[in-house]
Amino acid sequence: MSKTLAEIAKFLKADFVGDPNTVITGISGIKEAKEGDITFVANPKYSHLAKETKASAIIASKDFEESTDKPVIRADNPSLAFSQVVSLIFPVDIKHPQGIHPQAILSKTVKLGKNVSVGACAVLEDNVDVGNNTIIYGGCYLASGVSVGNDCLIYPNVSIRERVKIGNRVIINNGTVIGSDGFGYVTIEGRHQRIPQVGTVVVEDDVEIGANVAIDRARFDKTIIGKGTKIDNLVHIAHNVVIGENSLIIAQTGISGSSTIGKNVILAGQSGVVGHIDIGDNVVVGAQSGVTKSVPANTTVSGYPAKPHDIAKRVNACIQRLPQLFKTISSLQKKIEELEQRLKDK
Amino acid sequence: MSKTLAEIAKFLKADFVGDPNTVITGISGIKEAKEGDITFVANPKYSHLAKETKASAIIASKDFEESTDKPVIRADNPSLAFSQVVSLIFPVDIKHPQGIHPQAILSKTVKLGKNVSVGACAVLEDNVDVGNNTIIYGGCYLASGVSVGNDCLIYPNVSIRERVKIGNRVIINNGTVIGSDGFGYVTIEGRHQRIPQVGTVVVEDDVEIGANVAIDRARFDKTIIGKGTKIDNLVHIAHNVVIGENSLIIAQTGISGSSTIGKNVILAGQSGVVGHIDIGDNVVVGAQSGVTKSVPANTTVSGYPAKPHDIAKRVNACIQRLPQLFKTISSLQKKIEELEQRLKDK
Amino acid sequence: MSKTLAEIAKFLKADFVGDPNTVITGISGIKEAKEGDITFVANPKYSHLAKETKASAIIASKDFEESTDKPVIRADNPSLAFSQVVSLIFPVDIKHPQGIHPQAILSKTVKLGKNVSVGACAVLEDNVDVGNNTIIYGGCYLASGVSVGNDCLIYPNVSIRERVKIGNRVIINNGTVIGSDGFGYVTIEGRHQRIPQVGTVVVEDDVEIGANVAIDRARFDKTIIGKGTKIDNLVHIAHNVVIGENSLIIAQTGISGSSTIGKNVILAGQSGVVGHIDIGDNVVVGAQSGVTKSVPANTTVSGYPAKPHDIAKRVNACIQRLPQLFKTISSLQKKIEELEQRLKDK
Repeated sequence: MSKTLAEIAKFLKADFVGDPNTVITGISGIKEAKEGDITFVANPKYSHLAKETKASAIIASKDFEESTDKPVIRADNPSLAFSQVVSLIFPVDIKHPQGIHPQAILSKTVKLGKNVSVGACAVLEDNVDVGNNTIIYGGCYLASGVSVGNDCLIYPNVSIRERVKIGNRVIINNGTVIGSDGFGYVTIEGRHQRIPQVGTVVVEDDVEIGANVAIDRARFDKTIIGKGTKIDNLVHIAHNVVIGENSLIIAQTGISGSSTIGKNVILAGQSGVVGHIDIGDNVVVGAQSGVTKSVPANTTVSGYPAKPHDIAKRVNACIQRLPQLFKTISSLQKKIEELEQRLKDK
Repeated sequence: MSKTLAEIAKFLKADFVGDPNTVITGISGIKEAKEGDITFVANPKYSHLAKETKASAIIASKDFEESTDKPVIRADNPSLAFSQVVSLIFPVDIKHPQGIHPQAILSKTVKLGKNVSVGACAVLEDNVDVGNNTIIYGGCYLASGVSVGNDCLIYPNVSIRERVKIGNRVIINNGTVIGSDGFGYVTIEGRHQRIPQVGTVVVEDDVEIGANVAIDRARFDKTIIGKGTKIDNLVHIAHNVVIGENSLIIAQTGISGSSTIGKNVILAGQSGVVGHIDIGDNVVVGAQSGVTKSVPANTTVSGYPAKPHDIAKRVNACIQRLPQLFKTISSLQKKIEELEQRLKDK
Repeated sequence: MSKTLAEIAKFLKADFVGDPNTVITGISGIKEAKEGDITFVANPKYSHLAKETKASAIIASKDFEESTDKPVIRADNPSLAFSQVVSLIFPVDIKHPQGIHPQAILSKTVKLGKNVSVGACAVLEDNVDVGNNTIIYGGCYLASGVSVGNDCLIYPNVSIRERVKIGNRVIINNGTVIGSDGFGYVTIEGRHQRIPQVGTVVVEDDVEIGANVAIDRARFDKTIIGKGTKIDNLVHIAHNVVIGENSLIIAQTGISGSSTIGKNVILAGQSGVVGHIDIGDNVVVGAQSGVTKSVPANTTVSGYPAKPHDIAKRVNACIQRLPQLFKTISSLQKKIEELEQRLKDK
């Protein structure tokens, strides 16, 4: 779809500089943009690219000062404005399943809200309860006693295990498993005996979960994913983990059993958290870090074992200089030997 | 369900101290416990929490000596006793599928034992052979020639590929794939040509496997998961890997092709093992470690490259002290210069 | 099936030394081989095993010089020859699904080429387009507008999301998800607001993908997996990643958003690549490495942060020697103190 600069600015209720009739036919990142695209600069670090971009227009912040001959729309939040323009230029035309497919398999005791959709080969077992406007794609399996709130979107081949509770406006991508057995064993004479995992998982409102994630049910009690938290692909969340609100758990991260993660936490990709520790609010854990003890709120940690990021950076800088250090020390050794020799000679 | 202290002690055939009429209505970890809960202390490290817990009763070992005013049940193995009480207080009420669902898809050549259950939209191809009392949930796919033993529990959306053999009492959580193609290529003039992966996978008795695990079939011969071994979520096991009995492979660990893992081994979370090496019996590999060469039996290793844990700890302690070391060396350099100067001045 | 040495050599159009009537009934690696097996030596490092192997015949390179009393077939490429013999001795007898299963669920607007197979409980939504001879196993979900080329093999429980394009001769193992939503959010007043992910994924010809992989669709534009690239199990590929031709992405590796990977690149197991960087052609990234900035072509990097492999090895060797270094420095300190004392005494 094509829009003029004026139409886009009006849609955003934003001021603009440049030819109002500039035609925008696409959207793109500032580096990749080509003629006809609109792009955006949210991070001042990339402002200088505004000069070089081939885009036909730029969405920037109100205090954007880079000189450019491109049309500029000034927005309070350029990322948000851009994301709204994405929907304007490429109106989402995904046709989700509509209604209950004749080859969906619903137990007689399933309770459905208004306007629920269930795709082909989805299986909803006894006493599953689904809220209004929720879409459950084909190939999903909702075990007995599962409840799902309103306005959820559950993509194909998702498994939700017995008694798990999903809030409202939750999105779950394909292949994800919620409520698998926690990894809990008692070892008796060398054999691992299973501890019954009779708890469940609660996924609160506005949580979004990527593809092929695994979230284990609690041993007893609940594994909890807090409101507004977003989880990326292939993440592992063990039994009895509790995650606060609005945290971001990036791809391939693993959280061991019974650890708690605060609000607004970021666990970057491939990081790991041991069991039974507490990560405070607003903590940032660097990519590939291994967190081995509790982290106080408002701290950025990285490395293995994870430590405050400025220390980790200093330690890491030292590591890189080690080959040189070994040389330095060799030369110091020689100098000392010389000194000893000279002193003896005197 | 609620039970009295006396009832629980009787059920465990264990002695107890405290009011026999104490009513227990829940179960919980020692830190999280609230009034009415029973909890346990297995690890002496946590014994001191027996004083602070809000639980109404504690299961402890026979040599537990911490003073507490709570009722205490003394058991040989508090973890095991606790796990039994879990089943007593919260009798598992999971209703597995019963019988063959009319919308299960079974080839005519499938052989079923007694009392087998197969859920809706499960597909069992030619010559699949399933033992007595085994439960195969909906959405599973068992390819041609697969055999599954007695008393197995296979959760929804599991894929078992052609000719894979599963033993007795095996549990497989949702989304797991057993028998996918090994990653084997011959590179000819820059193009990767597939080596046929004509082997299979053997999963022995009492193995339990988490969610979204991937276990590759052997190139030829067999990938083997030994009796009683337990595998956590999102683990990767490459072609021709052989794992011994009663090992624990924790979440997100990866084992490369043709490596062998002994008995009673623990590979902690996010660890990695290169191909073609041997990990001996009773080895423990620390979390996030990278094992690059064979490890003799009865060794604990950690770090990258993995080395004996006491050495790894020492090395790691040194690393943390590097910024200080660099300062020390600077001051040594200065002192040497001063000494040299002084010596020259003499 | 059994073959004689002469038959195998003739099949390979290769010369041989030894009894032409030697009967070969199996195939195996050189260490595991038993009587009746044929094995191979491709890597000169393992040539010495030719003396010890129990195999009845060996495929070796033309310049193989190890003395052995076993029959030897000399081939240009022993790995390739061996892989061909695998198919000769164990002709692949996998029976893929044939035709459209009556319980496959196809929208009326699906377009099928010649000789397409679709298994039970596979769901093909509106406007899915499938090329000739392609096999789609049961339990797969192809969303609206997906196109799949000729001669593809898509194993059970694979999810392909809306509008994704799959080339010719592509193999996708079980549980893999292609086209899941990219992890893109704008954070406004502490809440993460989803950026619509309206792009798609293009998987080019001859790509092969392992089990339980997750490949995200682009935010806008395309995530691209280049021709001939092979991807192992449990790999994460984020939105807008572009991978060149004939690269190998080994198990559990993660590539963050908008990074580009060149041709003939190898990302070894459990490695990670941050977002928005470029990895040049022919780069090799070591196992468990963390790549934090762009890597020029034809470089081997390893460690965290990833650096040229020879430097990483040197740094790593230094790290292992740290405990000794600390001792050395203590003794230097003492010597300096002594020197200072002696100088004072003079």
